Amino acid sequence: MSTKSFPLLATVNDPADLRKMSRAELKTLARELREFVLESVSKTGGHLSSNLGTVELTIALHAVYDTPHDRFVWDVGHQTYPHKILTGRRDRMQGLRQWGGISGFPLRSESEYDAFGTAHSSTSISAALGMAEAFKIKGSEHQAVAIIGDGAMTAGMAFEALNNAGVSDANLLVILNDNDMSISPPVGALNRYLAQLMSGQFYAKARGVGKSVLKQVPPLLELAKRLEQQAKGMVVPATLFENFGFNYIGPIDGHDLDSLIPTLENIRQLKGPQFLHVVTKKGQGYKLAEADPVAYHGPGKFDPAIGLVKPATPPKPTFTQVFGHWLCDMAAQDERLVAITPAMREGSGMVEFEKRFPKRYFDVGIAEQHSVTFAGGLACEGLKPVVAIYSTFLQRGYDQLIHDVALQNLPVVFALDRAGLVGADGATHAGNYDIAFTRAIPNMSVACPADERECRQLLSTAFAQNHPVTVRYPRGSGAGVEPLESLEGLPFGKGELRRQAQPAVAGRPRIAILAFGSLLYPALEVGEAVNATVVNMRWAKPLDTALLQQVAQSHDALVTVEDGCVMGGAGSAVLEALQQLHIDVPVLQLGLPDAFIEHGDPVKLMAMQSLDAAGIERSIRERFAVSEAASGQSAAA
Amino acid sequence: MSTKSFPLLATVNDPADLRKMSRAELKTLARELREFVLESVSKTGGHLSSNLGTVELTIALHAVYDTPHDRFVWDVGHQTYPHKILTGRRDRMQGLRQWGGISGFPLRSESEYDAFGTAHSSTSISAALGMAEAFKIKGSEHQAVAIIGDGAMTAGMAFEALNNAGVSDANLLVILNDNDMSISPPVGALNRYLAQLMSGQFYAKARGVGKSVLKQVPPLLELAKRLEQQAKGMVVPATLFENFGFNYIGPIDGHDLDSLIPTLENIRQLKGPQFLHVVTKKGQGYKLAEADPVAYHGPGKFDPAIGLVKPATPPKPTFTQVFGHWLCDMAAQDERLVAITPAMREGSGMVEFEKRFPKRYFDVGIAEQHSVTFAGGLACEGLKPVVAIYSTFLQRGYDQLIHDVALQNLPVVFALDRAGLVGADGATHAGNYDIAFTRAIPNMSVACPADERECRQLLSTAFAQNHPVTVRYPRGSGAGVEPLESLEGLPFGKGELRRQAQPAVAGRPRIAILAFGSLLYPALEVGEAVNATVVNMRWAKPLDTALLQQVAQSHDALVTVEDGCVMGGAGSAVLEALQQLHIDVPVLQLGLPDAFIEHGDPVKLMAMQSLDAAGIERSIRERFAVSEAASGQSAAA
Repeated sequence: MSTKSFPLLATVNDPADLRKMSRAELKTLARELREFVLESVSKTGGHLSSNLGTVELTIALHAVYDTPHDRFVWDVGHQTYPHKILTGRRDRMQGLRQWGGISGFPLRSESEYDAFGTAHSSTSISAALGMAEAFKIKGSEHQAVAIIGDGAMTAGMAFEALNNAGVSDANLLVILNDNDMSISPPVGALNRYLAQLMSGQFYAKARGVGKSVLKQVPPLLELAKRLEQQAKGMVVPATLFENFGFNYIGPIDGHDLDSLIPTLENIRQLKGPQFLHVVTKKGQGYKLAEADPVAYHGPGKFDPAIGLVKPATPPKPTFTQVFGHWLCDMAAQDERLVAITPAMREGSGMVEFEKRFPKRYFDVGIAEQHSVTFAGGLACEGLKPVVAIYSTFLQRGYDQLIHDVALQNLPVVFALDRAGLVGADGATHAGNYDIAFTRAIPNMSVACPADERECRQLLSTAFAQNHPVTVRYPRGSGAGVEPLESLEGLPFGKGELRRQAQPAVAGRPRIAILAFGSLLYPALEVGEAVNATVVNMRWAKPLDTALLQQVAQSHDALVTVEDGCVMGGAGSAVLEALQQLHIDVPVLQLGLPDAFIEHGDPVKLMAMQSLDAAGIERSIRERFAVSEAASGQSAAA
Repeated sequence: MSTKSFPLLATVNDPADLRKMSRAELKTLARELREFVLESVSKTGGHLSSNLGTVELTIALHAVYDTPHDRFVWDVGHQTYPHKILTGRRDRMQGLRQWGGISGFPLRSESEYDAFGTAHSSTSISAALGMAEAFKIKGSEHQAVAIIGDGAMTAGMAFEALNNAGVSDANLLVILNDNDMSISPPVGALNRYLAQLMSGQFYAKARGVGKSVLKQVPPLLELAKRLEQQAKGMVVPATLFENFGFNYIGPIDGHDLDSLIPTLENIRQLKGPQFLHVVTKKGQGYKLAEADPVAYHGPGKFDPAIGLVKPATPPKPTFTQVFGHWLCDMAAQDERLVAITPAMREGSGMVEFEKRFPKRYFDVGIAEQHSVTFAGGLACEGLKPVVAIYSTFLQRGYDQLIHDVALQNLPVVFALDRAGLVGADGATHAGNYDIAFTRAIPNMSVACPADERECRQLLSTAFAQNHPVTVRYPRGSGAGVEPLESLEGLPFGKGELRRQAQPAVAGRPRIAILAFGSLLYPALEVGEAVNATVVNMRWAKPLDTALLQQVAQSHDALVTVEDGCVMGGAGSAVLEALQQLHIDVPVLQLGLPDAFIEHGDPVKLMAMQSLDAAGIERSIRERFAVSEAASGQSAAA
């Protein structure tokens, strides 16, 4: 990217540079920054709409606050490209979300301007409050600011933090970045009506509250009617945020530096918890994104002049799509099926289901805790809930999984998308831990389909059980094995022998690879290469101990392979079972290491973890001293 | 308990019986029921104040609703003794919270009247909404009612459920059982002032909202002032619950059947989400409990005529107290220490700390998710947070532990109280899973002190680290090893050899027991009995692999012992390490089984799981064919 097109932006290597600029220069800077974001994302892919929406807010914040001494905590953090560009990472935008490049989210290890790493929603108020309290204790004058979207504000965690912050006298600013621009007429009318009644800096922000936090709430209409009927002189109803103890300011136009900067300058002088309501527009300044912010939420590479183009050949169906089809097919067959998503309709492949079965579809908002217990309530009444949730987000509902579902042994299916490494989203979204944390729970079963066909089959098996089952599958597509139309399941808790090794050669260990999930396919390659038996275990819990026993007793060494953490994972389940069977056999556990793995191309990441065929083969040869020659010989035998 | 003193209660074997009674009879029933609760709890111990507070509400609910076809979900559920007594379990109250007796919480397996098992806070609205949605889908006329206290209402999960329920048209009733009676004058004045303005069934319940949900919130005073200054004609501010889309009714007196029954009868006819605000008094009707509801929250046995008596000899100090002392001592030494509790000041032993270090003490409310990330924010600014949290409640902050603390490798100490079985509280509160779910997280360390002295030492070790550490310890007291005054820690990640077996006898396996946590002491007894080496491992992560290697190589069999789940627990960590060390040695894993274990005396429960000395010895003898005679011989040799 030539700096010629961005003459002013090119001079900002640090927010201190922009603090020297005039208001007029800042406005020019905003134009250049927006253009830079668009050009940059069009070349790398990444989040677009949200970042076009935060250009002015980011400039205003850095212009007013003394970063990095003042702390910004960006909720979710996918809207921080302008922030990254202004804080010395302009040139690194070309490596965004790629291995070795900068993250798509704020990262403490990446910059002193990234005060808190984010990615999962609704953490920002908690973290910023912690910082604000620390400043108070240390007698420091720094400020802590949380910037949170209207979606993220609905999660329970954000409310917990508001509830705590509201009784604190720490200097915390929460900025609600309200970027939902759809205003239905009656709500807008109420807003206009109330606007006449505003006094001082208090705005009756019923529109914003009703729209963004509470959604389609009827009482506002009720209130509007009562207002028209009764009111002469009146007070403005306290906003929800005032109820929580915040000083509420807003709403202000989040694309107007002439509003933003003076408002922030004023707020910076105030003590105690402050709440600024800013209205922005997703995709602001790029007509195509403004018109379709969802499509431009996280696009791949594209030509800004043309916009997104549909790929000529549709990509291979993903596990997500396989799940979506299964869900519709099973719902058509069994009217007890209901489906729940915590605000992940698109990501979890439920668009079609919602269209076809709207009454059996529940988007509960960003509310993982609630989603799990809500499913428990549905199951109590004889329905069969399917909770579609990313592996990484089920972490938010872990207590509910134990306490509300498993303890009562309720038949809920958890469709765990994005299990294993997720690629560009990085460590925050990694689905590495679910086998370990779900299998420790009594009554739970854990299925690990190896491919698309098995995914559909094991979902059917899970659905047929009378107890909770998770079915975990990776992001994107797998081996490409086409699902069958049938809704028949596979046997519960049973694996299958996929490859029987050739008869052993004297002096060489007979090796069996036990694969859990999609790594079956590289394992099969390795089986050929080193003449190993390959077992598709399919279930991390219950383990197919009969099959395990048979294989363990007929081989000299076992290798477990899984796309989850080794610590406590499926391989450990194998070790536990072998001890219970009193079988002593060396086991090589292959899986994800005890480390957070950063963003990058998932295929390369798996290779770096030696979890591709070459890596698995290498690990086996090293551990069991299988030479290349010897194995070649054996395979030929 | 003689039925003579409870003539009317004795006729109620089913709620249908009380539905036949006149209002006057129901009032008599309430008196008898209250007396019965008092007499019953005084004989068994259990929760008292909360149950005295729900007598009339329970009667009214069963009188109006068609249980068990209508569903009551009692939040937390420790206030359900009246409900249990009225639903056929009167005679079973004598076995309350004892093995084989009825649970102290609602339990689906115990009664068809217990629609949903509860114990952890704030799940009721989610579960009841699930039921209400199921009724809607099934076209059934049943009703779902959630009864939730003002404390439980502060948790994020409750807000997630409110947010979801408010846009639903399911027939859900949420009853806020507001049992905090302290009314500060200005709030009371505002309440009176607003009461004049009420119209129809809408009450301006600002007092209730301000007091119970938002606590000490200044804006209500602010609002009161503005009201007095400006208002002539006015509208009533919508309550928080109306903002959420509920039809708000209340507050009404929760001890007045003449208010409760007609109100509930009316509500039962209404469609959509209803919110009834009921004010009750903890300990109602028993003067001693009214005066000190905290002391009578969960008393042991006592004489109702005398009340609680201080035990003559103070009981052995608990791990909780050891933690409390350590916290104060370390805070006095290191001013960076800050301490956080999610609404468990007493339970976590932090009363003294709050008194001595009020500015460094944070009770964040029932908000486990927030507590963890808030600690992360504090740690970012150089403070050293200690989060005191029960093992079972850390499940609620699991995602935050991974995403906000461990991923950023922030130095936060988690003091995990109530690890392992907890006794009378039962399966819902069991701290069985934490070793499995914490050790799977990169950057985390997991310490398992064997006794009180080690608890203090390992807390100091944890505090000295620059990364997250959990220190887990059981409920109650341990071996009774007095803590040292010093704040010196033990070496990080190192275990110790506690007993070296006598030289082996030919033909008998050399056995080493690796103990994690307080089961070290029974393990030492067993070591004597079977002539085994005993190792105090102290750390489930990082494992002391050097010590493990040495012991494994010098013994023929290993036994791991832990008071956590076997699946993925510390024993599995040993298995993983042995494979990495290429050591093949049989390992017997002893720990808690893959099952939910109900309430009962913890000592007996551990014996039933073969985790007392006798059980451990028995398991070892069985597994490794060690005869009584042989070991006696060996020990004598």
